[in-house]
Amino acid sequence: MDHVETVAELGEDALLARIFPLLPSSSATLLGPGDDAAVLAAPDGRVVVSTDVLVEGRHFRRAWSSGYDVGWRAAVQNLADVAAMGARPTGLVVALVAPGDLPVEWALDLARGLAAAGAPHGAGVVGGDLSGGTEVVVAVTVHGDLEGRAPVLRSGAQPGDHVAHSGALGRSAAGLALLEAGLGEAVGCADLVQGYLRPVSPLATAVSAARAGARAMLDVSDGLLRDAGRIARASGVVIDLAAPALALARELDALSPAASALGADPLAWLLTGGEDHGFLATFPSADLPEGFVPVGRVREGEPAVLVDGGPPPVAGTGWDHFTPGAGAQPLR
Amino acid sequence: MDHVETVAELGEDALLARIFPLLPSSSATLLGPGDDAAVLAAPDGRVVVSTDVLVEGRHFRRAWSSGYDVGWRAAVQNLADVAAMGARPTGLVVALVAPGDLPVEWALDLARGLAAAGAPHGAGVVGGDLSGGTEVVVAVTVHGDLEGRAPVLRSGAQPGDHVAHSGALGRSAAGLALLEAGLGEAVGCADLVQGYLRPVSPLATAVSAARAGARAMLDVSDGLLRDAGRIARASGVVIDLAAPALALARELDALSPAASALGADPLAWLLTGGEDHGFLATFPSADLPEGFVPVGRVREGEPAVLVDGGPPPVAGTGWDHFTPGAGAQPLR
Repeated sequence: MDHVETVAELGEDALLARIFPLLPSSSATLLGPGDDAAVLAAPDGRVVVSTDVLVEGRHFRRAWSSGYDVGWRAAVQNLADVAAMGARPTGLVVALVAPGDLPVEWALDLARGLAAAGAPHGAGVVGGDLSGGTEVVVAVTVHGDLEGRAPVLRSGAQPGDHVAHSGALGRSAAGLALLEAGLGEAVGCADLVQGYLRPVSPLATAVSAARAGARAMLDVSDGLLRDAGRIARASGVVIDLAAPALALARELDALSPAASALGADPLAWLLTGGEDHGFLATFPSADLPEGFVPVGRVREGEPAVLVDGGPPPVAGTGWDHFTPGAGAQPLR
Repeated sequence: MDHVETVAELGEDALLARIFPLLPSSSATLLGPGDDAAVLAAPDGRVVVSTDVLVEGRHFRRAWSSGYDVGWRAAVQNLADVAAMGARPTGLVVALVAPGDLPVEWALDLARGLAAAGAPHGAGVVGGDLSGGTEVVVAVTVHGDLEGRAPVLRSGAQPGDHVAHSGALGRSAAGLALLEAGLGEAVGCADLVQGYLRPVSPLATAVSAARAGARAMLDVSDGLLRDAGRIARASGVVIDLAAPALALARELDALSPAASALGADPLAWLLTGGEDHGFLATFPSADLPEGFVPVGRVREGEPAVLVDGGPPPVAGTGWDHFTPGAGAQPLR
């Protein structure tokens, strides 16, 4: 068997020397990696900042996800948080904790995945830190520019608003369920597994939503019901999801091969599956920006999420990161 | 024995609800925690960014460091990276990975330590992320404002420059050595142990150095010799440390109680001990800003670090994060 070079053998400085060339700068990169800190452009005079962490065995398994996949996901979930404020991504930094026996190639692939996810959106990887540890941990912090607009908060929804969604729903959850069942190779399910391994967030639609006057918005990371509940609580309103199964028929169709293979309820994935990194927003007008599908209305009342005016038809509205068994995605 | 509430029992949302009130905002905090992302002021139109990670069992042990200590250190080492560019800190975000059995109070103390270290310098804790994991990992990203100045890089040193240092040297390494030897309570050594647990970085001196025209600067995080070597390589110069034992006699004196207790060489701590987070800078003039002590000169030649014109008198010039045994501080 060929020897696989590990990060402990290579050492920190040499590993960084191999990683740096994989990290293209963007137009917002004023000073990239290599000094004590990086410098990013912040032309708006404000900078939007979000941080998210992925932990091996909780958010991913190396048996299923390549370094590239993990880098991609870590970047996308952070980029989506910045876009959900209506900001254009400008750059990210990453802290990597790696066991000494991690193959060097896995770490380089992580850098490639981070770079590939951010580059098309103008977000370079401008800095980072490395440490040893028991399990792989990837902590990404992303930055964005508001281009003169007010940030779009969770708290701005008003009764009468139109609730809309852009992006995929339930595909990541379905893909993970397939992998957990050992059905990652099932016929017709490759897109769903890919949706878990390398979700594609429609970042541009979030910036369009901000330009179009979205009153509230967030990145759907923990499931439609749970994240709708966050807008409901922050805004003090009822989010009434109207016939989501009809509105999101295309999403439901995409889930059907996995539902058949697993004997599962695709509507449950649609309503509670997280990590697709689409956007849920409310608008004062029914004239929605491209990419958004109407999924309900905002009403007055004690904060709650309803489906067709009543309680949601599925149990489980997300998960808690410290009690893996409580949610829909036990890997957490 | 009283029951100690753990983060798994409390759950993520409730833990965040207890942490948020512990995080005071600063004048640069335009939007704090609670939405998808935070918003920080970046009045200069650029933002300085650095990220650093602390891993349990590598960078700290819970037996020695309280949550407050770890939060303090995580903040200080990041704040020092931003200050080393000549920037004024504005805010930080933190990703915390915690085993489910971590006491809630430890996590709250971490937040208090982060807040306490940043607040006097105008840096609020504006956001974060939580996850479960096997060991505690604290990844902090810090931001700063250049106030219209050019960033001070490692690459700007020029032959003839005066090399100077501000802050403590070797105290953190001595404090750690005392703890490792079970002598954390040794007479006269409390300041050194405190220097390891809660280092105080003279952040204001770094901003003063930038205002005074420092040509190169960095945060001394891995030891004077190793970090001087980074300036030497980046600038293509020789750093000749002139009689550092004399120049830094006050620092050497501070190390003597620990050197006596352990039978160790205090000069080795002075030259190779990391994590005090002082600043090493080069200046075109001998007229140094307050807090800086002259420690040598920059000369032409193949990049190298000399001590009194010759090779350094001690072995070990730092450590590698993946090969803990190779360096001066085996906990890494």
